[in-house]
Amino acid sequence: MFKIAIDAMGGDHAPNAVVEGVNKAIATFPEIEVLLFGDEAQIKPLLTVEDRVTIVHTDEVVESDDEPVAAVRRKKGSSMVMAAQYVKEKKADALLSAGNTGALLASGLLVVGRMKGIDRPGLMPVLPTFNPESPHLILADAGANADCKPNNLYQFAVLASFYAKAMFGIANPRVGLINNGTEETKGNELTKAAFPLLKEATELNFVGNVEAKELLQGVCDIAITDGFTGNAILKSLEGTSKTIFKAIKNQLLNSGFKAKLGGLLIKNALSDLKDQFDDTKEGGAILLGVQAPVIKAHGSSNEEAIFNAIRQANKILTSNVVEEIANHFRSLS
Amino acid sequence: MFKIAIDAMGGDHAPNAVVEGVNKAIATFPEIEVLLFGDEAQIKPLLTVEDRVTIVHTDEVVESDDEPVAAVRRKKGSSMVMAAQYVKEKKADALLSAGNTGALLASGLLVVGRMKGIDRPGLMPVLPTFNPESPHLILADAGANADCKPNNLYQFAVLASFYAKAMFGIANPRVGLINNGTEETKGNELTKAAFPLLKEATELNFVGNVEAKELLQGVCDIAITDGFTGNAILKSLEGTSKTIFKAIKNQLLNSGFKAKLGGLLIKNALSDLKDQFDDTKEGGAILLGVQAPVIKAHGSSNEEAIFNAIRQANKILTSNVVEEIANHFRSLS
Repeated sequence: MFKIAIDAMGGDHAPNAVVEGVNKAIATFPEIEVLLFGDEAQIKPLLTVEDRVTIVHTDEVVESDDEPVAAVRRKKGSSMVMAAQYVKEKKADALLSAGNTGALLASGLLVVGRMKGIDRPGLMPVLPTFNPESPHLILADAGANADCKPNNLYQFAVLASFYAKAMFGIANPRVGLINNGTEETKGNELTKAAFPLLKEATELNFVGNVEAKELLQGVCDIAITDGFTGNAILKSLEGTSKTIFKAIKNQLLNSGFKAKLGGLLIKNALSDLKDQFDDTKEGGAILLGVQAPVIKAHGSSNEEAIFNAIRQANKILTSNVVEEIANHFRSLS
Repeated sequence: MFKIAIDAMGGDHAPNAVVEGVNKAIATFPEIEVLLFGDEAQIKPLLTVEDRVTIVHTDEVVESDDEPVAAVRRKKGSSMVMAAQYVKEKKADALLSAGNTGALLASGLLVVGRMKGIDRPGLMPVLPTFNPESPHLILADAGANADCKPNNLYQFAVLASFYAKAMFGIANPRVGLINNGTEETKGNELTKAAFPLLKEATELNFVGNVEAKELLQGVCDIAITDGFTGNAILKSLEGTSKTIFKAIKNQLLNSGFKAKLGGLLIKNALSDLKDQFDDTKEGGAILLGVQAPVIKAHGSSNEEAIFNAIRQANKILTSNVVEEIANHFRSLS
């Protein structure tokens, strides 16, 4: 039985969306048990399941504008930090929250704890590509480390390779280095120094530099970058796709009868496409390099997104990938 | 009369697209004269105008995979470097090419020459936003400087502010710093150090940090970043929008009769939207901080994109913005 510690109070639609996601997950996955951290008076009426769910009542909440490290240090009784503490004490196996990203990263680092041999854990979302032959792209790091050293990039590649194998069954995941050109000589100081490290690493399937414009075409399974650039790319993918879908809707509504009718006819097809591009399908972003799975669900998560993140946590625990990673890095030190 | 030096051999559709763009520009703008650098035998049959166009025959071409600095040093007789040399010698007032970006930047820096007081010139494309009240976004730097210092970011902001005023009549252009969060304390080492410089600069209208996901919504007129991140953002905007429009087309073609019919009905509206998002409408990216306007047109430029870049060069020369910038930085030193 896997125990998942879930912050019921994190995210834009908490606690409703979180508890509803838990209801569905408990009914679907007989092998999991959920510890729900938060305000019992709010959570209890929303829960439709009784077995395998325990509410751990907490009074405090980490707010979205709390300074991350200060929140972790001062709000020890909050739903997020208490959940992390349970994982630290092995009373739970994985941590899940849709709350303040920085605070969750700090909880992962300072409470759950770094894995031996890892310099900097990396935050790794899985993005859907438009290439059916290579539908998943792991972006590492997407924002845990604004400044990186070459060795951090190398470690992200190793961590993500283990993850891609365990979660998507990719035998030899292709690692690309995000760069400002595909030629080997291109780059800033960081990527120029990271390139030879990645190239010489025999345990990696390094395919060279990749450009941000090719990411959704499936040129690699794992795209490596520093957390500042990764964050910028992730947000510009998100911003551009949202803006375009909105612009299409507006354009069709304001272009006269023919376009309006056309808009009605393509509504389903367009909505299928939006689903295909939904980046919460594979769950949340995982923080890899800490001692247990820590999953950040999107702040705007609805019931379905939370359910997907729980399914992801279950799959990670079933695969035993975090233990595998720990063994690998232990064997090196 | 403004003299524009144009590399006829640069770009995917050279020399045809370039010469056709020149034909149209000469007919449209009576105040310009064009010097066309390239293979006379190829250019001459394409030219439909005679007045105000001079072909300067060159034998060599900078290829798209040439190493930039080596190309500028060794291919002094190439169409691109010769055109830069004419600008350097004041035989032409502006330089335009759709060829190898790195080589054009190197031609700007090493041949045309840096402006006094500028540490690093910046490459600045103008992106169309989806906000009709604030339709232009200047991205600085989009790739000329992979590694930047805080002062470079400050200078990009000053350069781009002059440009936004002169080209778009924005009296007090809003400058945003691209960051991994909008709070003042967010960032990597570079943005944390650049923030106070921008905030304290009384000549700038600094509006604080902006996130990559908001750029197309018109949150600022100028978005400042290092060239590595700028390049990644530009390419991910480009890649995402192309991929989505392509995916929509495929989706509609493969979704049965209803969607196909809908697709036909919305074709015009969708194509209007694509036009609105066309980033060659305002011409190419300008390299600011060198002694004359150097314009990089998109490698895939067609006749229309070249024409737009010539119109842009004409407008820059008419506005005298480069001289204004030079005076400003001269007065500081």
